[in-house]
Amino acid sequence: MNTFGNLFTLTSFGESHGRAIGGVVDGMPAGIPVDMEYIQRELNRRRPGQSSIVTSRKENDRVEFLSGIFEGKTTGTPIGFLVYNENQHSSDYDNLREVFRPSHADYTYTQKYGVRDHRGGGRSSARETIARCVAGALAKLVLTRLGIEVWAYTSQVGELSLSGDYNRYDFDEIEKNPVRCPDADMAKRMEEYIGKVKSEGDTVGGVVTCVVRHVPAGLGEPVFDKLHAALGSAMLSINAVKGFEYGMGFGGVRYRGSQMNDVFETQQGKIVARTNHSGGIQGGISNGEDIYFRVAFKPVATLLKDIETVDSQGNPTVLRAKGRHDPCVLPRAVPVVEAMAAMVILDYYLLAQSHKL
Amino acid sequence: MNTFGNLFTLTSFGESHGRAIGGVVDGMPAGIPVDMEYIQRELNRRRPGQSSIVTSRKENDRVEFLSGIFEGKTTGTPIGFLVYNENQHSSDYDNLREVFRPSHADYTYTQKYGVRDHRGGGRSSARETIARCVAGALAKLVLTRLGIEVWAYTSQVGELSLSGDYNRYDFDEIEKNPVRCPDADMAKRMEEYIGKVKSEGDTVGGVVTCVVRHVPAGLGEPVFDKLHAALGSAMLSINAVKGFEYGMGFGGVRYRGSQMNDVFETQQGKIVARTNHSGGIQGGISNGEDIYFRVAFKPVATLLKDIETVDSQGNPTVLRAKGRHDPCVLPRAVPVVEAMAAMVILDYYLLAQSHKL
Amino acid sequence: MNTFGNLFTLTSFGESHGRAIGGVVDGMPAGIPVDMEYIQRELNRRRPGQSSIVTSRKENDRVEFLSGIFEGKTTGTPIGFLVYNENQHSSDYDNLREVFRPSHADYTYTQKYGVRDHRGGGRSSARETIARCVAGALAKLVLTRLGIEVWAYTSQVGELSLSGDYNRYDFDEIEKNPVRCPDADMAKRMEEYIGKVKSEGDTVGGVVTCVVRHVPAGLGEPVFDKLHAALGSAMLSINAVKGFEYGMGFGGVRYRGSQMNDVFETQQGKIVARTNHSGGIQGGISNGEDIYFRVAFKPVATLLKDIETVDSQGNPTVLRAKGRHDPCVLPRAVPVVEAMAAMVILDYYLLAQSHKL
Amino acid sequence: MNTFGNLFTLTSFGESHGRAIGGVVDGMPAGIPVDMEYIQRELNRRRPGQSSIVTSRKENDRVEFLSGIFEGKTTGTPIGFLVYNENQHSSDYDNLREVFRPSHADYTYTQKYGVRDHRGGGRSSARETIARCVAGALAKLVLTRLGIEVWAYTSQVGELSLSGDYNRYDFDEIEKNPVRCPDADMAKRMEEYIGKVKSEGDTVGGVVTCVVRHVPAGLGEPVFDKLHAALGSAMLSINAVKGFEYGMGFGGVRYRGSQMNDVFETQQGKIVARTNHSGGIQGGISNGEDIYFRVAFKPVATLLKDIETVDSQGNPTVLRAKGRHDPCVLPRAVPVVEAMAAMVILDYYLLAQSHKL
Repeated sequence: MNTFGNLFTLTSFGESHGRAIGGVVDGMPAGIPVDMEYIQRELNRRRPGQSSIVTSRKENDRVEFLSGIFEGKTTGTPIGFLVYNENQHSSDYDNLREVFRPSHADYTYTQKYGVRDHRGGGRSSARETIARCVAGALAKLVLTRLGIEVWAYTSQVGELSLSGDYNRYDFDEIEKNPVRCPDADMAKRMEEYIGKVKSEGDTVGGVVTCVVRHVPAGLGEPVFDKLHAALGSAMLSINAVKGFEYGMGFGGVRYRGSQMNDVFETQQGKIVARTNHSGGIQGGISNGEDIYFRVAFKPVATLLKDIETVDSQGNPTVLRAKGRHDPCVLPRAVPVVEAMAAMVILDYYLLAQSHKL
Repeated sequence: MNTFGNLFTLTSFGESHGRAIGGVVDGMPAGIPVDMEYIQRELNRRRPGQSSIVTSRKENDRVEFLSGIFEGKTTGTPIGFLVYNENQHSSDYDNLREVFRPSHADYTYTQKYGVRDHRGGGRSSARETIARCVAGALAKLVLTRLGIEVWAYTSQVGELSLSGDYNRYDFDEIEKNPVRCPDADMAKRMEEYIGKVKSEGDTVGGVVTCVVRHVPAGLGEPVFDKLHAALGSAMLSINAVKGFEYGMGFGGVRYRGSQMNDVFETQQGKIVARTNHSGGIQGGISNGEDIYFRVAFKPVATLLKDIETVDSQGNPTVLRAKGRHDPCVLPRAVPVVEAMAAMVILDYYLLAQSHKL
Repeated sequence: MNTFGNLFTLTSFGESHGRAIGGVVDGMPAGIPVDMEYIQRELNRRRPGQSSIVTSRKENDRVEFLSGIFEGKTTGTPIGFLVYNENQHSSDYDNLREVFRPSHADYTYTQKYGVRDHRGGGRSSARETIARCVAGALAKLVLTRLGIEVWAYTSQVGELSLSGDYNRYDFDEIEKNPVRCPDADMAKRMEEYIGKVKSEGDTVGGVVTCVVRHVPAGLGEPVFDKLHAALGSAMLSINAVKGFEYGMGFGGVRYRGSQMNDVFETQQGKIVARTNHSGGIQGGISNGEDIYFRVAFKPVATLLKDIETVDSQGNPTVLRAKGRHDPCVLPRAVPVVEAMAAMVILDYYLLAQSHKL
Repeated sequence: MNTFGNLFTLTSFGESHGRAIGGVVDGMPAGIPVDMEYIQRELNRRRPGQSSIVTSRKENDRVEFLSGIFEGKTTGTPIGFLVYNENQHSSDYDNLREVFRPSHADYTYTQKYGVRDHRGGGRSSARETIARCVAGALAKLVLTRLGIEVWAYTSQVGELSLSGDYNRYDFDEIEKNPVRCPDADMAKRMEEYIGKVKSEGDTVGGVVTCVVRHVPAGLGEPVFDKLHAALGSAMLSINAVKGFEYGMGFGGVRYRGSQMNDVFETQQGKIVARTNHSGGIQGGISNGEDIYFRVAFKPVATLLKDIETVDSQGNPTVLRAKGRHDPCVLPRAVPVVEAMAAMVILDYYLLAQSHKL
């Protein structure tokens, strides 16, 4: 249940304030050169403390590989890796030991397991996404060789939303601002907005849009394992995600079929769709067009405000504002969305390969 | 890949115009009395020809059980079942043999498999949901014994949308109108609207809302198999679904954390949340509150209009309007959403059981 | 748990005296012509009543396909199939309703499920192997195209055992005698021996040897899913099997490493092993040599003798000799061993394909 | 494919001379106190250098836990662990870089992956069993609480074999001699024999017998996942294993059904079998009697003799005797057999739990 994927899999482990976060990637194709700096760079994109609008907590998060790579190349055997946690001061969290924080997993973990590691959310902490970013970076190494590109970006923060189609934006802009929004002006506005929310000790949600380009037609496993069902499940497994839509998504329910259908035509001897309302997937299988989808993140539950709640005995208590908080998870969620998308696409690529005799 | 679930599983088979649609349910608990009429009734809810606003195609769809039930009770062994297809006149579909219909799976199946059964969409037809409804009805038999209720209803058709919270509605109203909307007035308006769309040979999309009540706290498997990730994947695997959101969903991204957090309090000696913006799931695990989510359906691609497209050689062609069409899939999608939700909840119930020593 | 395999899977269902035995094959490659007569012939090899030395019970066992085959070819979608049971006279088995037969699964099924279908063993009956033979025949259709051959034969019945290596025998001899032994003289002796056992109302066990030829090097998934572990599990899942060994097996434990090692040498520019004590698998991966293994079957528990036992209340009782019995399961087990081996090899072939970029 | 089990799983990673061997245990029940010294002790049982009859290679093999344990108890979240490899001097193995050792996995890994880590067998090394022993020790912690005992011992080395039934031996004797044989006299003879084989630079195989006591009736998943099929697969996945049999196994094929059947009777109000030829499993499900089985190990392929072979170009070459070797793997295999058995039994215990409503 801590394993993700079918043929390319990640098994992850680790608590926020335990000794380490890590994982095992299985099914990595053999013979792929591993650019260690690239992987560390990908991991750095989710790191706290990158800018003034994310949590200032200091974590170096250096990934160490333990197996599966020999003389710079993958061997096809499982790749074990870990990131040691630098902050294991459990006393910092003594105030949480007997308290259930609202809209966190404190209560539900206790209900499920009877016990929990209360330090920083333990296993339910978003630090677990470290393992996803490392595995996703490995997946991307393969996808790049196949010519497949995965791009994610912040498209909405609170009320501020990019209008129009992803095609309008230059994806090279994404990494140039701390919000990871491909529109420089909107990025500026979002940044200011997040700053304001932060100063109030509050948090705000948003939407990440993801586009996958040059996926070959024919990836997807009907009927239960449709490509978009796998993408949806992957995204919904990320902390704080509350919704997923692809193609026209929820917006498309207002349209007529005659408006929504993607009419085929032949261009330069190749069958293509005139529009792409379907989001690159039909009947659960990629059709060769861009795959695009949107992921909704709720505002982070940890505030820098006093919070009313109950303790494990059910007695009312107040959690005092303390430490640091992450006003908007979106900038750091972008690389996680990319990582999960990359893992799904590679997994389905391998599945498609398997049936070619 | 045609198997759904972990411990309670459905393996489905069958094409729209092949001999039969069927499946195998594995992991059904033993000793459960099987009410055959209930199961047939559940299956009838997805049947064409129920009212003037769904397709008038005539299919009796009688389910036959082949195994796993002995002297009226489940035996714990796999339950094989099938529904014979009455309509196997492949000649009706000769015009589709060499044509790729827009926004159907004709093109992608051909890309994936090299061949396809062109009759009525073959495996990609929504007739496959017959197997889901049967399996879901079996799951519901167990859930009912556990006191768990699953309710789905049409909450939006095109522009027409119910406002406000699911708590405002009387779920006993749902089956009283052909739209399966719990608000009688809105149901009337939706019915008229669908009738108009039908008369134009067009189709329209909508949203199904689902509520699951009395789920015990503690169901869900962090981190990749969060309860809502499983629900999302299940819903996204239904034909024509383009989006899934739970709790406040996409709407919640506009709020501040201080507005969204579900504050705990003690009522009658029990810890409860004052609000339920989370949708009954926190950290991927049920918290005992109502689970609710929304599922977006695009308008059906088959129109009763001439449709411009290409044939398998890429030559332009026109598909002539012919036969019948289903102007709005929502009313018949409601039982499918319920069925999938029931299977997920039972599956996760069994998973939770497994770790209690 | 009634599903076998990873990428090529069989989900089976059905009880001995229920309506039907059947299954769903998923992961069958698309575009394979299906020779229906061949499949029926393969199924007939396990049928009762083939000769005087197997049970004389009359079952026609006609397989019907329900999906996944279109215009004579596989479509890549799941293949549903069934064999209707002709004998459903449950009254024939009324004497078993409250009795636990020795060395059958009556007692353990009751312990596990609380209920059981007592008619002819219900789900625990070897009639379930019908589904395996059909799925195995489908797998063989693919293997044949890949040039891979699967041969099984009876190599031991009671004390009568073939001596020496499988290479000494002409496999075309196997189907020429009712014992399915490739040595005509030994077959004659075995046949007489089984006849004698039958006349005494008793049963006897034996060994099936299986040889798989022309498996390409490189199939197998270390470390837990070694190719021989999958083969062993497959064989041990067949009714009455008590042991599995491959290569030199149990016999090899007496040897020194210096005697057992398969020395490599180059023949006609190709690296080959001088001997094949390893049985074609090293480190869990095929090496291109013949794969061979042996499967031990205990004598069938059903005798044509009065049997001392207890009823479900624990009271002593005697089961009176009645009806027919199968003195030696070996001849009918041969096609089942082949079927399981074929499924494993195809499954691992597909797994190996998946990682070739 | 490097993951073992269904609900209690081990995902293992690591090469013989890479940085570390490790794994992730998922599905460990929560709230179990973890006796770290016990686990290290279990791991020490497989360590090289324990006695004069196993390899003298020096490895400390200290296990470090990284997650899933909090304040001395399991939390139900995945348990990551590792053992750092002390010996990473790849130059020691330069002579193997371009050579395929006979009856090792060098050739097959190269065929499968195109590349391999040649140092000490890389991933195919039996050092991988470190992960199994740690996971098995965790499983045993749970089994002990359930009253279930797992015992394995050396029952045969080369020609020297214990005669008779496991009931004749005192299992407390097992750990008192370096061979891990419960008969002190035979242990002495085996030890001398292994010493002689060692002095000749050769190796010898043998058999490990395993007995599992106090397993409750009702564990096992018909039809493909029979309890003994899972045990068999687990054992066959251990390096050097060539055969598995349970109950009367291969020996039982010579008997008549009338001799083999385990007649039920009532003793002290409880239904029991008078004999246990079945090995505690009927129809794939435990019946409450002792489960016992035997595992055949071939002689280790690495000799302390010059070995004739070919290099990766197919040219003849001779591998010169060098370093140390392990004349008989049996003593160190005993804890691995126990570990795998413990994992299977716990996994199936959890599976059985899941279906109790």
